[in-house]
Amino acid sequence: MDKEKQLIEYILHASIDEILENIDELHPLDFLEALQDYDGNPFDLLQKLPDEYIAMVIDESEIDEKYNLLSIFSQNQKQEIISYMSSDELADMLGTIDEDKQQNILDAMEEEHREEMRELLSFNPETAGGIMATEFISVKEYMTIDDTLIFLRAISPNAETPYYIYVLDDSDVLKGIVPIRAILTSHPDVVLKDVMIEHIATIPVNMDQEEVSNIFQKYGYMAMPVVNEEHIMLGIITVDDIMEVLSDEHTEDMYRLAGLDEEEEIDGSVADSIRSRLPWLLVNLLTAVLASATVSLFDATIAKVVSLAVFMPLVTGMGGNAGTQTMTLMIRGIALGEISYENKKDILKKEFLVGVIHGAALGSVVALLGGLWEGSWIFGLVIGVAMFLNMVVAALSGFFVPNILKKINIDPALASGVLVTTMTDVLGFFFFLGFATILLNYLI
Amino acid sequence: MDKEKQLIEYILHASIDEILENIDELHPLDFLEALQDYDGNPFDLLQKLPDEYIAMVIDESEIDEKYNLLSIFSQNQKQEIISYMSSDELADMLGTIDEDKQQNILDAMEEEHREEMRELLSFNPETAGGIMATEFISVKEYMTIDDTLIFLRAISPNAETPYYIYVLDDSDVLKGIVPIRAILTSHPDVVLKDVMIEHIATIPVNMDQEEVSNIFQKYGYMAMPVVNEEHIMLGIITVDDIMEVLSDEHTEDMYRLAGLDEEEEIDGSVADSIRSRLPWLLVNLLTAVLASATVSLFDATIAKVVSLAVFMPLVTGMGGNAGTQTMTLMIRGIALGEISYENKKDILKKEFLVGVIHGAALGSVVALLGGLWEGSWIFGLVIGVAMFLNMVVAALSGFFVPNILKKINIDPALASGVLVTTMTDVLGFFFFLGFATILLNYLI
Repeated sequence: MDKEKQLIEYILHASIDEILENIDELHPLDFLEALQDYDGNPFDLLQKLPDEYIAMVIDESEIDEKYNLLSIFSQNQKQEIISYMSSDELADMLGTIDEDKQQNILDAMEEEHREEMRELLSFNPETAGGIMATEFISVKEYMTIDDTLIFLRAISPNAETPYYIYVLDDSDVLKGIVPIRAILTSHPDVVLKDVMIEHIATIPVNMDQEEVSNIFQKYGYMAMPVVNEEHIMLGIITVDDIMEVLSDEHTEDMYRLAGLDEEEEIDGSVADSIRSRLPWLLVNLLTAVLASATVSLFDATIAKVVSLAVFMPLVTGMGGNAGTQTMTLMIRGIALGEISYENKKDILKKEFLVGVIHGAALGSVVALLGGLWEGSWIFGLVIGVAMFLNMVVAALSGFFVPNILKKINIDPALASGVLVTTMTDVLGFFFFLGFATILLNYLI
Repeated sequence: MDKEKQLIEYILHASIDEILENIDELHPLDFLEALQDYDGNPFDLLQKLPDEYIAMVIDESEIDEKYNLLSIFSQNQKQEIISYMSSDELADMLGTIDEDKQQNILDAMEEEHREEMRELLSFNPETAGGIMATEFISVKEYMTIDDTLIFLRAISPNAETPYYIYVLDDSDVLKGIVPIRAILTSHPDVVLKDVMIEHIATIPVNMDQEEVSNIFQKYGYMAMPVVNEEHIMLGIITVDDIMEVLSDEHTEDMYRLAGLDEEEEIDGSVADSIRSRLPWLLVNLLTAVLASATVSLFDATIAKVVSLAVFMPLVTGMGGNAGTQTMTLMIRGIALGEISYENKKDILKKEFLVGVIHGAALGSVVALLGGLWEGSWIFGLVIGVAMFLNMVVAALSGFFVPNILKKINIDPALASGVLVTTMTDVLGFFFFLGFATILLNYLI
């Protein structure tokens, strides 16, 4: 907090020249945080900064904050700032604001830039095209290392570090990449053609972002080129975009498992929260009614042996927990690509065995508990066998439900939980109360 | 698959010179995957490759595969290969093998390298020291850009792209960093002191890896320097290390929420699975017994109104679901640092209101269901009010449990679930059966 106040004081009182000299030392995100805490007019601070830096600050800001920051400036300065902004951040912003605001921003762009932006906006935001940036350095294969260094000094690429330099032919078809390392360490007279890597992994522009992030995670690339069907290079995706994708996918997984809409925000409105959660609770209510209906089949039995009602939560609760364990292992394994045609059978066999052993262990414990409580070993037998069978059901449904959902292209995280617990609830009650009904004469 | 077979055929039959010329085009991970599918002696393939490339292949392999690959080679060649391996991968491997194997590897190292490795091994593997690599390029502030380029060509840094170059003083204290961009775009006569960034973010060597990954995600850095208390530079952490940390933390969160040990592997043994899961199921059994004990307080009531048993799963099931929603939102918010002292109150207020509204909505639905089922509006009232109160309990426990666990330094993902569902189960039964007991005269 104090550091931010100091920063604000410094910027308010330092000369523009002094700020310019030190601006490299200040991360745009730190400036942004200070700005958000500043009670005065943000323009007081922003006017002291160069346009390129303002663009970096806006690039760092949240998607719904960008337009407000931009609108502080005159149309002329806006145009300057926009020209420095990252194309991917700009496209994200344009994708979320009203049409007339969008038009206002597009009007402030140069013709060529505007066309590029229109193209970026045409891609699905959850695909490679939707997360790529169009700023990259392209060179020709006949250039030497020395030519390249002179070229780089001349264009002075913007702050996003160039990790690779891309060799394109005259039709913008990607021929190869030159790692920065080659530029730094090769003799100045070497021709790029001799150091470029030709067989490179590329990302098709319509690939889903989750698949893109899997490739980045697997190979550890810093940046990858995005191409269309003709292998014409359209943009790059950098690893920092991927870190955002990973974090979003993590949130999405956890939210879906819990029955939350992935768009819900922790400091959102009450209305948004209810829109996100109530539909899910109603789906669960339906499945809970199924469980209740199962119980109601046996109300005559419960009327005679009330202890059955006491032990009901044990059987279904434990089934739900065990089913969730297997299911979570499967969901995560599917997401990480750890489940293959070859190992599926072994995993099923293992999960089944685990279910059997858990069932035997927990079944014995509750049989003992039930027998002692009710003073009837038949009662203990009923609950023990029900627990045993329900643990096997838990293992099997925990295994099959996510795999089947995956096969029919439904995200397993979205629906596995409710299906698995419905199965363990309904079958758990059915086994427990059904056996009790069969053995009713020995229980009363 | 076919591509991998082709690759194997090519390497088996091509000349070493030919392979050397094309090796840049082959990602070590792709070679590793082909190697894993090759039925013959791996040495047939590996002997054709340069030691530096073999080191990259071993760097890419799984931690428990590295030693086996290394042990294919003679002690002399092993020494060569090890000298090219990444220090962080080497340390990870050494940390997991037997002491005599460890000694065998350490013996194959040069004195200086061995000391460095001993130091790396001394750090906790889940801290910055445990994930950093010791390979980085250090320069002096009086060097010019041209000096630097000559220096880089001379040392020819290994394949891991250098993102930054580090300026150290004579005691190895970190003075600043020079981005590659500055080297590529500055005039050759410029002195590093004039382009280096002095106020840079550094990572203390004992910082927890989760905190490190939060910093990377926030600022989007490609690499960060790790320093000790005297600001002496010890190593670097690169963003690809962080991607692994993120994936591990994601798995850990999901596993802990489900009651799985984070070490459990999807294709592990039955014994390991039971060791991972049974303790958790036993903890849950204890809490389920609490729920059953609550029910048993009211068995006389249930004996008179059996429909209570039918509706029991509704009240507690819905409470558990709603509690899990709020709890998941809080756990993820805590992990992402979205919950602050300032917004905590607002979030609590919102969650409370959401609970009240969900309670009113679902309470009305089940009141109607219960009233129709039992043909008694008093019965409907009992279950409706119990549902209402349990939704409020769900919201409050979903909010407070993770926050309190966080405060007493227990990972909220680890224990929130069992605590929240215990509260909604026990209190749900208590409200429902308690009211029924009070109003018993109107129910029979």
